[in-house]
Amino acid sequence: MRVSLRDVAAHAGVSVKTVSNVVNDYQHVTPAMRARVQRSIDALGYRPNLAARHLRKGRTGIIALALPELGNPYFAELAAAVIDSAAAHDYTVLLDHTGGRREQELLVCRGFRARVIDGLILSPIELEAEDLGDRAENVPLVLLGEREYDLPYDHIAIDNVAAARAAVRHLIGLGRREVAFIGARRGRSEPAQLRVRGWREELTAAGLPSDAGLVAATDGWGHADGEAAMIRLLDSGRRPDAVFAYNDPMAIGAMRALHARGVRVPEDIAVAGFDDVVEGRFAAVSLTSVSPDKEAIGRLAVESVLARLGGGTPAPRRVRAGHRLAERESTLGRAGAFGAPGRDT
Amino acid sequence: MRVSLRDVAAHAGVSVKTVSNVVNDYQHVTPAMRARVQRSIDALGYRPNLAARHLRKGRTGIIALALPELGNPYFAELAAAVIDSAAAHDYTVLLDHTGGRREQELLVCRGFRARVIDGLILSPIELEAEDLGDRAENVPLVLLGEREYDLPYDHIAIDNVAAARAAVRHLIGLGRREVAFIGARRGRSEPAQLRVRGWREELTAAGLPSDAGLVAATDGWGHADGEAAMIRLLDSGRRPDAVFAYNDPMAIGAMRALHARGVRVPEDIAVAGFDDVVEGRFAAVSLTSVSPDKEAIGRLAVESVLARLGGGTPAPRRVRAGHRLAERESTLGRAGAFGAPGRDT
Repeated sequence: MRVSLRDVAAHAGVSVKTVSNVVNDYQHVTPAMRARVQRSIDALGYRPNLAARHLRKGRTGIIALALPELGNPYFAELAAAVIDSAAAHDYTVLLDHTGGRREQELLVCRGFRARVIDGLILSPIELEAEDLGDRAENVPLVLLGEREYDLPYDHIAIDNVAAARAAVRHLIGLGRREVAFIGARRGRSEPAQLRVRGWREELTAAGLPSDAGLVAATDGWGHADGEAAMIRLLDSGRRPDAVFAYNDPMAIGAMRALHARGVRVPEDIAVAGFDDVVEGRFAAVSLTSVSPDKEAIGRLAVESVLARLGGGTPAPRRVRAGHRLAERESTLGRAGAFGAPGRDT
Repeated sequence: MRVSLRDVAAHAGVSVKTVSNVVNDYQHVTPAMRARVQRSIDALGYRPNLAARHLRKGRTGIIALALPELGNPYFAELAAAVIDSAAAHDYTVLLDHTGGRREQELLVCRGFRARVIDGLILSPIELEAEDLGDRAENVPLVLLGEREYDLPYDHIAIDNVAAARAAVRHLIGLGRREVAFIGARRGRSEPAQLRVRGWREELTAAGLPSDAGLVAATDGWGHADGEAAMIRLLDSGRRPDAVFAYNDPMAIGAMRALHARGVRVPEDIAVAGFDDVVEGRFAAVSLTSVSPDKEAIGRLAVESVLARLGGGTPAPRRVRAGHRLAERESTLGRAGAFGAPGRDT
């Protein structure tokens, strides 16, 4: 039989109203009373009717999350983080798949589903600042990702320039002198621009080349794009001794191309990626990668949406989530990955 | 300025009512008239107000998709297929993350969000038949995946037994005689049971062993589970010359373990997986895998939900989506993957 508010109240020896206040997270409950009611909720396995609870507050209990590609494990892992964080606040997540296309991103931003969602988290690829300028302020919008906009919306991102610099510094520290970049994008939009900038700044600071011959542009960001770009680089006559890829799938595609050509990783060419997806940790040669704090990004995005639902209009914030460099065999070599640093040059 | 129904009608030289009939997909419009209006819609870039359109029909325009884990690329690719297919019908997808936990799956099935969704597509892991027996018939439910239930719901799946048999037959055809299975699950629920059955049937038919010593049970289905299971098998004293894994992440984890131990794939141990995720195609040794027709699964699932919204109560259907075996280097060897078959034994 379904446990009711009344059952919880009887178990805790308090009024139904008090239980209701705890369940609905009202402020006028002492911590001691909250704990007492929570113990009864846990003991009885009471499950509040979430939909009704949200409706009482004039909300739907749904946050939309619009991502460019679910097939990319970074976005799948990020989605899982957002979904888990939303669930902790009794919110569920409606997923939109924009394909990274401007038209689709526009549709999402302009609130074509405003009636069913309380807030929107968007990771844009092609969207331009002017696309957001005339947005009707119906539901809170929080932006994710590398694109930077001078617009009054919360934006959650890691410091992409610093993260890229850290990866390139690591490669230089291992003695590499020709560090290529794979994954600058062709066309008007340039989501990779901060990572390219970090790559260039670090090389310039070290007095190393960062000319156009070391940059392989691609149309997409999948494994096959990385593989094709690596083959083009190898055939170009340049002899890079390291590669920094825009993301892990591209780095893994590049490693596949190197493997097929008999080029050793990291002895001949060290490879570093970006995103730290699970797949990289289980590659035959495990992948060194910039590891963004995905859990924090998901949590901060959900909290930003909820803060704007809480009433008041806080000033737009640019929030930095953390990152670290996960150093593995693709730069350190096999020995290095298990402890001793594996200098190869 | 926003293009209206009126603008389309003027452009096409027809009444607003006719345009409305076309946009709302009513039957009483001739194909010629439909084409004429569609040309004006395309020329003007008219975008119907989808939310309003669904609401007029008493619907929300949202299908919920409940998956056990987004981090597994199979489910991410499947979600993308469902989202794309739903979009083609002007539906959007609300994503639920059950974690494969029975409690979460129950919550989803019992329609805790019935008011916001028109239908539910669920890929269950732990759910038992009796959990669904008392389900209130508020929204159509379509099941996906390997679990089989004798229940009156549409179920879309590939033939898991036949698919597993095909993979094992391939390994036997290459001369392998000790074929291990990685990924049978510990505990009450057994999502892998059909794949284990197919593995066992094919080995038995060939007069080869399929005893418990060749089966590595795991608690989960990730890369790390496959890696750990492979290590246990190697340390068990058995000397399999082939491994069939429950899914690709486990197969890739197993290949990582083999690589670390200096065991050659496929020369010493051939490896085949299940799901044909992109990652396997770009492994250093590309992965042979059962390739379910994910696009068809996503499309059939969406169509099944919509068929039940169309009125009438069609009999529950068990729909088979197709599958094939993608043969690659992890069983054929490097030469084999590019044409010539690479027998290794």
